[in-house]
Amino acid sequence: MRPSTGYFFDDYSMGQRFEHATPRTITAGDAALYIGLTGARHAPHCALTVAQALGHGSSPIDDLLVFHIAFGKTVPDISYNAVANLGYAEVQFLAPVYAGDTMSASTEIIGLKQNSNGKTGVVYVRSTARNQHDVVVLSWVRWVMINKLENLENRASTAIVPSLKSAVDVSQLAIPAFLKPTGLTTQHTGSDKFFNDYGVGDIINHPAGMTIDETDHTLATKLYQNTAQVHFDAMHMEKSRFGRRLIYGGQIISIARALSFDGMENVISIAAINAGSHTNPCFAGDTIYAKTIVLEKHILRDDLGAGLGALTLRLIGIKNALPASVDHTSTEPNPNIVLDLNYTVLMPIIST
Amino acid sequence: MRPSTGYFFDDYSMGQRFEHATPRTITAGDAALYIGLTGARHAPHCALTVAQALGHGSSPIDDLLVFHIAFGKTVPDISYNAVANLGYAEVQFLAPVYAGDTMSASTEIIGLKQNSNGKTGVVYVRSTARNQHDVVVLSWVRWVMINKLENLENRASTAIVPSLKSAVDVSQLAIPAFLKPTGLTTQHTGSDKFFNDYGVGDIINHPAGMTIDETDHTLATKLYQNTAQVHFDAMHMEKSRFGRRLIYGGQIISIARALSFDGMENVISIAAINAGSHTNPCFAGDTIYAKTIVLEKHILRDDLGAGLGALTLRLIGIKNALPASVDHTSTEPNPNIVLDLNYTVLMPIIST
Amino acid sequence: MRPSTGYFFDDYSMGQRFEHATPRTITAGDAALYIGLTGARHAPHCALTVAQALGHGSSPIDDLLVFHIAFGKTVPDISYNAVANLGYAEVQFLAPVYAGDTMSASTEIIGLKQNSNGKTGVVYVRSTARNQHDVVVLSWVRWVMINKLENLENRASTAIVPSLKSAVDVSQLAIPAFLKPTGLTTQHTGSDKFFNDYGVGDIINHPAGMTIDETDHTLATKLYQNTAQVHFDAMHMEKSRFGRRLIYGGQIISIARALSFDGMENVISIAAINAGSHTNPCFAGDTIYAKTIVLEKHILRDDLGAGLGALTLRLIGIKNALPASVDHTSTEPNPNIVLDLNYTVLMPIIST
Repeated sequence: MRPSTGYFFDDYSMGQRFEHATPRTITAGDAALYIGLTGARHAPHCALTVAQALGHGSSPIDDLLVFHIAFGKTVPDISYNAVANLGYAEVQFLAPVYAGDTMSASTEIIGLKQNSNGKTGVVYVRSTARNQHDVVVLSWVRWVMINKLENLENRASTAIVPSLKSAVDVSQLAIPAFLKPTGLTTQHTGSDKFFNDYGVGDIINHPAGMTIDETDHTLATKLYQNTAQVHFDAMHMEKSRFGRRLIYGGQIISIARALSFDGMENVISIAAINAGSHTNPCFAGDTIYAKTIVLEKHILRDDLGAGLGALTLRLIGIKNALPASVDHTSTEPNPNIVLDLNYTVLMPIIST
Repeated sequence: MRPSTGYFFDDYSMGQRFEHATPRTITAGDAALYIGLTGARHAPHCALTVAQALGHGSSPIDDLLVFHIAFGKTVPDISYNAVANLGYAEVQFLAPVYAGDTMSASTEIIGLKQNSNGKTGVVYVRSTARNQHDVVVLSWVRWVMINKLENLENRASTAIVPSLKSAVDVSQLAIPAFLKPTGLTTQHTGSDKFFNDYGVGDIINHPAGMTIDETDHTLATKLYQNTAQVHFDAMHMEKSRFGRRLIYGGQIISIARALSFDGMENVISIAAINAGSHTNPCFAGDTIYAKTIVLEKHILRDDLGAGLGALTLRLIGIKNALPASVDHTSTEPNPNIVLDLNYTVLMPIIST
Repeated sequence: MRPSTGYFFDDYSMGQRFEHATPRTITAGDAALYIGLTGARHAPHCALTVAQALGHGSSPIDDLLVFHIAFGKTVPDISYNAVANLGYAEVQFLAPVYAGDTMSASTEIIGLKQNSNGKTGVVYVRSTARNQHDVVVLSWVRWVMINKLENLENRASTAIVPSLKSAVDVSQLAIPAFLKPTGLTTQHTGSDKFFNDYGVGDIINHPAGMTIDETDHTLATKLYQNTAQVHFDAMHMEKSRFGRRLIYGGQIISIARALSFDGMENVISIAAINAGSHTNPCFAGDTIYAKTIVLEKHILRDDLGAGLGALTLRLIGIKNALPASVDHTSTEPNPNIVLDLNYTVLMPIIST
């Protein structure tokens, strides 16, 4: 059983498996609060009529709400003593989740690398979330820096770093067989820009900004049942180098994605997150902006002029600076860039 | 298609129509969060048993939650560049909305008047919200002051100001045929004051106050998917004359109405908003109080001692001052009065 | 009818009964927001699959959410003019509440004691909450200090203090006949500590802390439709001895209980609160920690190695200090202890 102080780097071993506690039934209540916390507007998650036009029986839960709740399950076993959440890869959204579905999560240790300072190590994990029918709805890899136990002799171990794909292969994107891409229309979304209207290299500076206050992010983190103390124990964080609570990085992803609606209105869903990192911390009072760069385009189906495409996008989350002012091509560290995410979304192809 | 910077005064023309994006399915989750955000206690929206006693199949969604969500849909096309929301008229609640209903909104431009400073103009719009069965559930008129594009020659246009009713005609109030007014009882609401117990000229100083914090109003505005940047982009608002985020005026209406429960407990629903204006801005930290003056009484049905009446009320929203201290008869501007609303509610007539 | 300023001590008489206003239907939306407000993780309330394994038809609403909503109903009639909520006793959770159930509450005055200063008195009440089938789901006793009306001659009355049980008798705990205790498993909760693994005298310092911000507690109090002005009228509270809004004590109970998950994961439900008091006030910015001491153990059912036990626990809520640093055995007042609760929970007995 897990010690009440959580696991440290030395506690993990290759191939070790965790069945995470407390399955969670996602409800219309969670979906409503998620809209309140992010201002999310992507139509398939907000409107039953749109979901049904796409072929769903009911509104699918926002992909990122599914991700955050599944991710939260893994925190007590994986990142309770994490110093930093270093990166994500191979995040695959494999099946829709609907209100009423119950999710459970499990994790396997797939890599371990002790840092040269001897005080921390990097743990690589592959996690999986399943619904009540044991269908995998989400799987992802992340790696976190975790403290070693003090006064413990270094374990003589070889560093094992898993080989990770730079991107989820387009042929492996999970597309529901029932999906009718043309169910999403300009009337639903307010935009006539579909797959064919975006080109590789396009840059979209999303116009809106959203300031995050203390309750905004702690309410979100509690809703996700994410127990990482850095997010909501201000007394504990006073002694940290930040001096205050850190905003859960996942909430920044959610807000950046919600802001990206203006300019990317016809996204049906997120199919994969290929890579991602939280490049700077965020705190209450920060105002978040977002910028999208189109990286790749793939035609998935081209059925008689009513097809489906995949856009691979770079989503840059920015704090306290307008998107247009941020040079995303620079390799210099930019203190205003808080998120750098490479992800793949589905979008209808409308022939004209 | 809408430019990413939104429309300016010069972009609108008489008779122009907008089908607003992102239909929204309202759920029990939205209703719960609305209670959390306002403390609303009117029984038909909180208790299935009361709703059923009134003849509903399930609990109708609070009229103002319906209004805010419908209103939010119109923001990107109508008031994204608004300087001020000047007023409301002819707001008619035409059919109940229930959890599970999906609302869409559309708008027609019904008036345009350039201001003499040449920098702004007033746009008058009539908006309509429909449910998934294409039944109109709500219609309203509002007028907003909108910036003109800079460096643009003034359009040579005649001012067109629509003729608006000073009040929705009582004969046009929409009363569900199934409504059984006596379904609302003293046991449900805690008050034995019904239609016959209110007189024209009555003044009710509602006792409670409610302080609004930053997350309170931004959570509400995001729940309503209202994208007006003045409400949640603190960086943007630092440069404004207010120096900070403005509270969405609609949230003040909701809080004033929730506070009005104490003293007006037996209101069944809002039938119409005849006129309304936000007379001063509100900011986080303000404490809101409310005062009601009974303006008119109309008997709608007088069925064997179990009838239905309409009360036309003036609801005054006040910040940082007790209702009794505010002289509502004065014509001098009062910096504490933030809302002046003329609306019509339905109430049972209980013969004794 | 209740005066708009609420009742004062002098208004109450022995045996007086109140049917409280505004029944409330509890929904999945309330349950979701409750998770967001507390981070609650007890599996029966979060996961339909776990609830069903325990024998429920659907997920039971968290016991404390039921309590807060029922409690909130009583505030306008009982504690609107309360100076302090002095204590609880004989709180019995008598039947599960599910999403869709509508609760109503009533109260009887069972004790009255004027204080020697002649300015206040203590009112003892027994309250009851029923569902739409008129089944009692919750009953509780509390006593509050309430202001006397000024300039009123002291009522010549004998103090009547009810005889209250120091604890709900274990034989009177309500256990649903359908309950299958072994439905709650280590896989669900992450802990293999069940009834037999706890001993009388065990002390559990729960590791996590949770900081409460202003919106956190006002959102909760409004969700519970608790109208006590001390919680959300900052203008009113500026003149109080605290100078600011007080956090609703019930929210502290909820947070302490949510924190107690780590170390008490296999609690099925709360059966009773035997005694409780709010020993110090809490304000926005406080960080809450919790400590549990096992007081008593009772075997309720011992069916072929799959039984059910009751643990009577002392739950200490602490602000701004780590649980291990607080001496719970001291009889000196401790300004960091904010809650001292004696309650009884149900837990599976797993024979090994």
